[in-house]
Amino acid sequence: MEKRPLILISNDDGITAKGIANLVEVMREIGEVVVVAPNKPQSGMGHAITIGQPIRLDKSTIFGEDVLAFECSGTPADCVKLAKYHLFKDRTPDLVVSGINHGSNSSISVIYSGTMSVAIEAAIEGLPSIGFSLCDYGSQADFSHTHEYIRKIVLQVLANKLPKGVALNVNIPKKSDEKIKGIKITRQALGHWGEEFDERTDPHHRKYFWLTGYFVNQDKGEDTDEWALKNNYVSVVPCLYDLTAHFALSGMNEWEL
Amino acid sequence: MEKRPLILISNDDGITAKGIANLVEVMREIGEVVVVAPNKPQSGMGHAITIGQPIRLDKSTIFGEDVLAFECSGTPADCVKLAKYHLFKDRTPDLVVSGINHGSNSSISVIYSGTMSVAIEAAIEGLPSIGFSLCDYGSQADFSHTHEYIRKIVLQVLANKLPKGVALNVNIPKKSDEKIKGIKITRQALGHWGEEFDERTDPHHRKYFWLTGYFVNQDKGEDTDEWALKNNYVSVVPCLYDLTAHFALSGMNEWEL
Repeated sequence: MEKRPLILISNDDGITAKGIANLVEVMREIGEVVVVAPNKPQSGMGHAITIGQPIRLDKSTIFGEDVLAFECSGTPADCVKLAKYHLFKDRTPDLVVSGINHGSNSSISVIYSGTMSVAIEAAIEGLPSIGFSLCDYGSQADFSHTHEYIRKIVLQVLANKLPKGVALNVNIPKKSDEKIKGIKITRQALGHWGEEFDERTDPHHRKYFWLTGYFVNQDKGEDTDEWALKNNYVSVVPCLYDLTAHFALSGMNEWEL
Repeated sequence: MEKRPLILISNDDGITAKGIANLVEVMREIGEVVVVAPNKPQSGMGHAITIGQPIRLDKSTIFGEDVLAFECSGTPADCVKLAKYHLFKDRTPDLVVSGINHGSNSSISVIYSGTMSVAIEAAIEGLPSIGFSLCDYGSQADFSHTHEYIRKIVLQVLANKLPKGVALNVNIPKKSDEKIKGIKITRQALGHWGEEFDERTDPHHRKYFWLTGYFVNQDKGEDTDEWALKNNYVSVVPCLYDLTAHFALSGMNEWEL
């Protein structure tokens, strides 16, 4: 019998979210699963790590007695670090998966995403990794249609391996009457969040703000994650943690510095 | 008389840090300065934004009566968003600068850095931006030697403009007896933080962990930020927020998806 792959699972919506329960369900068919997930929602945490405070790690039986699971007081990136350097001292996960996020992480949202910080942290640690997101923010969103796509992508990653340092950002359209057309390899669309600060006054007469935003797609390309999702495809963007703008190096070497 | 550039300043060590006071001092010589900085340290916050909580913004006179300054309860990225969408509704900053960070943000630290999240958020918003860091973690670090390099880099950015979507990650060697050799345009060194979790038991007999790490430079190149800093040069890395691993797209299009 072939050895089953060891799969680490985390997320940013917290260990009690419906999305991670769905991911555990799919991954258990494929390999041996270990879960290390935040004990509270951590959306919008970007690639934060916990430096100034201690971190707690407690066993959890939320996925049943036969799934080794831990809830962690830290950020999504902390969960990966704790798994690699504390729990897995003598073993190396074959794959790290994150999600399924309640809400899209396409285009620039990858930068703010706790879900993708799990995948990118894993890539930094040299581990193949995938972040999965469903384009539906509802806490009771229907994840049933995502299983077949997740299975397909995971099996391809295990079979083909990922290029060194690459993490996948997978976004899956919301469940609808229209059937998903397939899976597209895409690039991150150029976009940003226009913000509106909702200004209010508290009972103590002090002002405060709520951050609210609307996504602006600045990219007309038909090879982007935004285009794929809009046209009812699953989008797969390979992501790097080398932020260097290599194309800018030669021009800047002409500066008078 | 030429119009003085409008310069937004933020950081991640908080508005009371010595580093931002030094940055304000240098920038006031160059342009009109507005400060929006966190009201508490936010190191390691990566590109976090505040979604689940309200944000406070209060005027501050910490830099004297003639510098418009605000302290913000949110993250470094929140500060940029508040400045752009709330404070600067009818004006656009000519430059956004962040820091001076107490500690290096070279190599992979760019990903965890609140200092660089200011610069990258500004780039996303289409604003030229630079994050400055001093390779000295001390709260009372000597910043005096950084001024001339900051001035030089800022003036070159204002004169040459930055390519669209590019933010600069500038790291400056710690003050020492050896004179800094100059400024190098570099790329992000391949590296990661090996972590050691310091496991302790609290007075209530519960375990907790402190995250402690050591940087591992995996990159032998002599064109990297790590090489430059080790050889006593100021390092300037142009950074992008498009995480797409463009080189991986064609190979992945052969997958069976």
